[in-house]
Amino acid sequence: MRALVTGATGFVGGHLAEHLLAEGDIVLGLSSSGRWPESLQFLARDIRLERYDLADGGSEDLGELIARKQPEVIYHLAAQANPQLSVSDPRGTWALNLGGTLNLLEAVREAKSKARVILVSSGVCYGSPAPEFLPVTESCPLRPNNPYSASKGAADLLGIQYVLGYGLDVVIARPFNHAGTRQSDTYALSSFARQVAEIELGLRPRIEVGNLEVTRDFTDVRDIVAAYRLLATRGEPGEIYNIGTGRDVSLKRMLEILKDQSTGSVEIHVDAARVRPVDQPFLLADASKLRGQTGWAPRYTTEQTLSDMLDYWRTQLKATLQVAG
Amino acid sequence: MRALVTGATGFVGGHLAEHLLAEGDIVLGLSSSGRWPESLQFLARDIRLERYDLADGGSEDLGELIARKQPEVIYHLAAQANPQLSVSDPRGTWALNLGGTLNLLEAVREAKSKARVILVSSGVCYGSPAPEFLPVTESCPLRPNNPYSASKGAADLLGIQYVLGYGLDVVIARPFNHAGTRQSDTYALSSFARQVAEIELGLRPRIEVGNLEVTRDFTDVRDIVAAYRLLATRGEPGEIYNIGTGRDVSLKRMLEILKDQSTGSVEIHVDAARVRPVDQPFLLADASKLRGQTGWAPRYTTEQTLSDMLDYWRTQLKATLQVAG
Repeated sequence: MRALVTGATGFVGGHLAEHLLAEGDIVLGLSSSGRWPESLQFLARDIRLERYDLADGGSEDLGELIARKQPEVIYHLAAQANPQLSVSDPRGTWALNLGGTLNLLEAVREAKSKARVILVSSGVCYGSPAPEFLPVTESCPLRPNNPYSASKGAADLLGIQYVLGYGLDVVIARPFNHAGTRQSDTYALSSFARQVAEIELGLRPRIEVGNLEVTRDFTDVRDIVAAYRLLATRGEPGEIYNIGTGRDVSLKRMLEILKDQSTGSVEIHVDAARVRPVDQPFLLADASKLRGQTGWAPRYTTEQTLSDMLDYWRTQLKATLQVAG
Repeated sequence: MRALVTGATGFVGGHLAEHLLAEGDIVLGLSSSGRWPESLQFLARDIRLERYDLADGGSEDLGELIARKQPEVIYHLAAQANPQLSVSDPRGTWALNLGGTLNLLEAVREAKSKARVILVSSGVCYGSPAPEFLPVTESCPLRPNNPYSASKGAADLLGIQYVLGYGLDVVIARPFNHAGTRQSDTYALSSFARQVAEIELGLRPRIEVGNLEVTRDFTDVRDIVAAYRLLATRGEPGEIYNIGTGRDVSLKRMLEILKDQSTGSVEIHVDAARVRPVDQPFLLADASKLRGQTGWAPRYTTEQTLSDMLDYWRTQLKATLQVAG
């Protein structure tokens, strides 16, 4: 399939692009920087990258690009995806997450494109659901508690409206927490993996962590992007699909797995400052709609995900040390 | 109570202002025009009107105004409320309905105001619910089918987020169809009442109507604004309240009532061009949450509402004829 990926140079964008290439798709990337980061340079050979800032209003150029390139599927990943940052910058968050989606859908409409649009939303839209809603299905009321979550929920309504009102082909994906290689270490699991690798290399004495009691429905990012591609062919327009394993694992357990996988001696220090004020106490996905309709099933175990993340950081840090040395 | 009303010069704004004055509140109005229309001149003596365009970005001036005037309750009515227009102007609709709400809530936050904000949403957010969801409660999934409905649903998420994320006091009101005097005759009931009055005055031979089979949950606008004021004292922050009688009446039945009330001989002509492409087939409110929590009950019968609307148009048209004559 001919695919257009917005936010192609991000953490998830890179994994999606990799997956699409492996599936034989032709991929065009869109990003506000127009440049691949160091860690994604390996994609530069196979994927053409266009520079385009979706928040920057105007859909004319984008409509033209879509009319010219005729993508069959558009994966919309571009977003201000940091909940913390969204709290201090609600306007910027809304401008990209809602305004950018509006610009994209208007461009698709102007181009009279029949492309399927996979809108990547987020399970955090549900906020902290009452126990009777757990695990959450797609009909759980949205109780967003930060601008990131609220803007994602709003963009979903926009997507549904473009199906019902303008006849566009939009499918909404609501992934729950996901982790993997190349993820920023501002996220808990990536931070853990990095710190464990640093201990192995003698770069730090112990690992600093926040609230370990938090449990999450974590999915390997490679399983998440596989779901996106399944939805591109098997999803229903105007429908929302949760993506998550449905199993909750505590950060404590994740850290234990990493400790077991490490060749070093990992001492843990809990630091209250690392507890995020907008922390989500508990969120568990019911992804039976996705499983039933697309046959999706996660392929990566938690152990595999963490082992790959640890290896990634070992390689990264060694390379940095070699350059420095 | 000290009240600030955005969109004060609109159809609902006028009725709300009238109700608040009758209840002894001190009312400050906000409107993008800064002028009362002819039909609301009677409010000019008691209500100060400030000119402010909520869609026009920036919340600084508004924050200052709120800090200075210290309203205890803010009724947010300003909106692009025409579903038809929203289909042809999605950007303008989102700019005012979502962007304007963001500007207002940011202004409240900047002013460190403890005012309760009544966000006026709409029952059309629910779209055309499947039969099992009727009558619709507040937990019915949103399936907006035009930009007006989608932007209203999105603004509700924004409101919830400002409660959960920033501790603001926001209550969301979801009124279903409402009618009353001074309503634009682009709305079915107002058009019917106007045409019946025109027939009585010999200004037209017959009444032109669209699809009469449509049924609606119609409430008198005076009952709607009474609910807003009840929510100002008895609503719960972050909660959504449907407002509607829960009775569906067909446009056909409404027209029969008007016919019976008329002194003229009303002949009906069905005109397919008057059927709106974004017409809602069926929508019925479950307002038991509102009733239970605030004691709200509609006070006006359909007959009373229609009779008052007919009288309004008779007076309006006679005044116009006198000026013209």
